[in-house]
Amino acid sequence: MANRIKYLQERRTRLLGPNVPVFYKEPVHLVKGEGVWLWDADGRRYLDCYNNVPHVGHCNPRVVEAITRQASTLNTHTRYLHEGVLDYIERLTSTMHSGLTTAIMTCTGSEANDIALRMAEAVTGKRGIIATDATYHGNTALVSQLSRSNVPASGFGLEDYFQHVVAPDSYRAIDADGTLFASAVSEKIAELEKSPHGFAALIVCPFFLNEGFPMQTPGWLKPAAEVVRKAGGLLICDEVQSGFGRIGSHFWAYEKQQVSPDIVVLGKPMANGHPVGAVVSSIEAMTAFRNGFRYFNTFGGNPVSCAAAMAVLDELDEHNLMAHAQTVGQYALERLKELQQKYECVGDVRGSGLVFGAELVSDQTTKRPASEHTDTVVNSMRDKGILLSKLGRHKNTLKIRPPMPFSLENAKLLFDTLDEVLAETIGIC
Amino acid sequence: MANRIKYLQERRTRLLGPNVPVFYKEPVHLVKGEGVWLWDADGRRYLDCYNNVPHVGHCNPRVVEAITRQASTLNTHTRYLHEGVLDYIERLTSTMHSGLTTAIMTCTGSEANDIALRMAEAVTGKRGIIATDATYHGNTALVSQLSRSNVPASGFGLEDYFQHVVAPDSYRAIDADGTLFASAVSEKIAELEKSPHGFAALIVCPFFLNEGFPMQTPGWLKPAAEVVRKAGGLLICDEVQSGFGRIGSHFWAYEKQQVSPDIVVLGKPMANGHPVGAVVSSIEAMTAFRNGFRYFNTFGGNPVSCAAAMAVLDELDEHNLMAHAQTVGQYALERLKELQQKYECVGDVRGSGLVFGAELVSDQTTKRPASEHTDTVVNSMRDKGILLSKLGRHKNTLKIRPPMPFSLENAKLLFDTLDEVLAETIGIC
Repeated sequence: MANRIKYLQERRTRLLGPNVPVFYKEPVHLVKGEGVWLWDADGRRYLDCYNNVPHVGHCNPRVVEAITRQASTLNTHTRYLHEGVLDYIERLTSTMHSGLTTAIMTCTGSEANDIALRMAEAVTGKRGIIATDATYHGNTALVSQLSRSNVPASGFGLEDYFQHVVAPDSYRAIDADGTLFASAVSEKIAELEKSPHGFAALIVCPFFLNEGFPMQTPGWLKPAAEVVRKAGGLLICDEVQSGFGRIGSHFWAYEKQQVSPDIVVLGKPMANGHPVGAVVSSIEAMTAFRNGFRYFNTFGGNPVSCAAAMAVLDELDEHNLMAHAQTVGQYALERLKELQQKYECVGDVRGSGLVFGAELVSDQTTKRPASEHTDTVVNSMRDKGILLSKLGRHKNTLKIRPPMPFSLENAKLLFDTLDEVLAETIGIC
Repeated sequence: MANRIKYLQERRTRLLGPNVPVFYKEPVHLVKGEGVWLWDADGRRYLDCYNNVPHVGHCNPRVVEAITRQASTLNTHTRYLHEGVLDYIERLTSTMHSGLTTAIMTCTGSEANDIALRMAEAVTGKRGIIATDATYHGNTALVSQLSRSNVPASGFGLEDYFQHVVAPDSYRAIDADGTLFASAVSEKIAELEKSPHGFAALIVCPFFLNEGFPMQTPGWLKPAAEVVRKAGGLLICDEVQSGFGRIGSHFWAYEKQQVSPDIVVLGKPMANGHPVGAVVSSIEAMTAFRNGFRYFNTFGGNPVSCAAAMAVLDELDEHNLMAHAQTVGQYALERLKELQQKYECVGDVRGSGLVFGAELVSDQTTKRPASEHTDTVVNSMRDKGILLSKLGRHKNTLKIRPPMPFSLENAKLLFDTLDEVLAETIGIC
């Protein structure tokens, strides 16, 4: 096995180039997936606690069937008439607040965010964009500038338009009602308004997932949204990770934040891994963008993509997966709290629905991030057949974000194993 | 039927927004495809002479089977090890010149071009890009600036980096050996080198397909490529439309041009409609890009996309579709020449393999573009069950670019019908 892994890694370096990371010290060579399970080439089974793209489960039969049926029937672009794209957008927007009625379907969340930023420019006539300093919104030349952790060395000078506010952190920097965040946004707006760029939009994941999903009271984002609106800017909610019921309490995380975004961006889980994204907006914002640009996406909104995306909504509905996420998420938080009481290194536990995790620290008093320990835990979990990862500014937060059918029994196995691994690695704390 | 079309168009305007064009005065409501045939909701059959995305035929069984098999087995990202992406890139690059050994797989040609331009910046440290003034390379904020015909009103100031040379036109502006084009490129390089941007790359479709696919002798692009190389810039060949054997004589159009591009961009036909694109480069260019940016594409290179793309290569090989394109393309040119002799309005006939067309003019002496007549022909052909379109600077060139299995018999039907339509619309000439 070690030889095969080495051989595959050599091929990767030769064919993909350098700086293409794989997960884990000992990478996993996957060959099969089903529901919440993945298998490697040696037949070993792993519980998938990481992947949010296979939203309704790996190789979900309904999605596979929808793709097969439509790919065997017709797959073409949107310059012919077809019900698929219309039925899907109608159903999708019916889950959102009443202002969001139109959409452009794309192939990725990156493409969708790239449109969203230009839409903000089209509406406001401004170019200044604000994001948090610990986020990720995609990989195009424009959109990759939103990240501070992986700043492209080449980017056609686009960095000039972006301002970053300190990401919320409910563990180390209390901001109970979001007013401090709103003040920080307000300051950056003022800076942008003094510059030639002006202020166009604030873009956030309304669950701040990459930032480490801070615990926030409902409506926490409202003060920032008000500041944005007052300045004539747009609020873009990137629901690529937080949407489609994942947080359990709401279908969209912006609902819990009690804000009405001007633009919502979708991607990853939308079609269970089939490459689909979307940008949803008011007809006014869409008109401003489209009147200035006859945007066309060859694959976007094709009948196969729409059939796959529709099957995901059907599956979420039929199996009440949002309510299920809420139930399993509550159990997960209880288990995390138990671990927090048992281990000094479990500094903070957070989550909502099927996205949760724990921040590992040297001790609960100093809260010093235990990044190395976190890395050890992630790799030990992998060795015990549980796939998860880490994230956040200090890379010390366990990132657990399984497919939505993840059961109480699966969660029990996850936490029993995590308990074992924490006990074994306690010396590192 | 008219009522249903009207209803669908109303839904489109409501759900997709304004300025989302459909083909034809009477749009086609498609429900089914197979090989080179498409069917509308009334059961009427159309010969597809337009769509290059379903490269090996609509609903190709091998591709559908590959997608179904892999979507039922495993679909995940490239941070785990999987042979699919490695096997595909190895096979793909084996069809290209020896310098092109590495690739990034994306979901669209737009994403791939967006990387290619940044790769040029990473290699050269410059940002000035040259393209023709009648091209299209995609829809991201960066890449959409390459077009002059559909310039986005909102684009974060990126237009500053782009210079456009007059597109080649073998009918109206003779440039037999490409030296005039090379001079034009050279002038723009000098302009860019005087600017703070410098010169990074020339990007062209090596068949100049959107430009109206001028007839060019083999090696026509060599003088321009030499000018680019001498200036320290990169040559990017966008083979999204011209590649994968379409031109009949060569698998890649850059081969006919006798140039060695630094970067090749792929998209549309690559996986027969499954959203897949790629940027292929030398290991040096890839390293320059990747060392400056840990690019990751969630869906790019997933096992299903690679299986679909591999099935396309298998299908091309097994049915010798490139040689087939050559044969049918030769017959097409003969038929086009007959029409040119018969009708004064057929001003110029061009093509290679399965991309060909005719430029319609008021008369063969003045060569005045007959854009309105072309529009009438395209719509009359649609009414007779033949789908094609038009392109080029004057929108007077018939754009015929069918799926690769398009047969001699299909071509006969196409030209018999075109003969009829030209006879019927002769008064408009």
